[in-house]
Amino acid sequence: MTTPEIRRRPGGRSARVRRAALEATLAELAEVGYADMTVEGVAGRAGVNKTTLYRRFGSREGLLLEAMLELGRRQVPIPDTGSLRGDLLAYGRSIVACRERPGVEGAIRAAAAAPSHDSPLADASREFWAARLALTDEMIDRAVERGELSRPAHGRALVESLLGAIYFRILLSRERMDEAFVEGVVDALLGDGPAGRSAD
Amino acid sequence: MTTPEIRRRPGGRSARVRRAALEATLAELAEVGYADMTVEGVAGRAGVNKTTLYRRFGSREGLLLEAMLELGRRQVPIPDTGSLRGDLLAYGRSIVACRERPGVEGAIRAAAAAPSHDSPLADASREFWAARLALTDEMIDRAVERGELSRPAHGRALVESLLGAIYFRILLSRERMDEAFVEGVVDALLGDGPAGRSAD
Repeated sequence: MTTPEIRRRPGGRSARVRRAALEATLAELAEVGYADMTVEGVAGRAGVNKTTLYRRFGSREGLLLEAMLELGRRQVPIPDTGSLRGDLLAYGRSIVACRERPGVEGAIRAAAAAPSHDSPLADASREFWAARLALTDEMIDRAVERGELSRPAHGRALVESLLGAIYFRILLSRERMDEAFVEGVVDALLGDGPAGRSAD
Repeated sequence: MTTPEIRRRPGGRSARVRRAALEATLAELAEVGYADMTVEGVAGRAGVNKTTLYRRFGSREGLLLEAMLELGRRQVPIPDTGSLRGDLLAYGRSIVACRERPGVEGAIRAAAAAPSHDSPLADASREFWAARLALTDEMIDRAVERGELSRPAHGRALVESLLGAIYFRILLSRERMDEAFVEGVVDALLGDGPAGRSAD
């Protein structure tokens, strides 16, 4: 199959529209911020019809959700460094770095602000994190296989604690995060090793 | 010194005004929410002059900060159960319970939404958490004295991770938190004990 043939397939056009829409959403986030982002603005930037975006993504929140998932896939991949410590460090560092991208922090703050009930933005946030957390399972599975976690159930809690420590600083305590911060949290999460912390 | 004499002292009146103002702030938060809370509304409810509140608390954000610190002192005391695990469990549970109080969750979401720069609400949030985290040091110091933490530096990171895991669920992933959640996080933070998790 030649490249032109691929491009003519419906899936090809569909994929291009999707890519353009998500790129335009991230660009709008960076330029005007989530509060002022509109489906119309994204449509104009992407060069697609507004109704196409509504049909494909449902709403402004749907666009945000898909754009943030795409950003996550690109900027915060699930690491495979060979150790749980290495994976958590890499994961934490890429989350901290991703926050620096223009528009991202504002979108996170908007999601955090949404009330729990009757809020499409809250629903998008819930869906985003369910998908993101599910991806981390492979990191945990590998740690269990290597014998680094005797209780697999602790894996998810460790990931939530690492994410939590980072977002707690971003959203609430607003303390600066440097390289040492992520390392300090990961070291604390994994303990000092067998002799380091007494059993409870 | 008789009670009436105490009541006539400036400190006595001052303390009463403060108490009334903070009670009224919490009541306003519960009734109208932070977005609609005004210094005027708090003044009317507390039966004190609006200018008195501005003089004492500086601003609406100053009132919120002091009211939330007062609420924290009352509802989320630093526990002393005799073990680090017990203390972290009690601390985490009281944070989860405090969130149920009307108005509290809305105030937290508002604080999380505030942009990092030029925001009195962001400054109030920073100040609130610096004060709250400083209080947890005694819990950590006791754990170090009991030999439960070989590296005192990990103590603060553990507390931030616990707080983080809880607020991550409240603000972002919005997953339900039950009794088992706090216990699962604390168990993961403290590991399975010396033999439970291999050293990295």
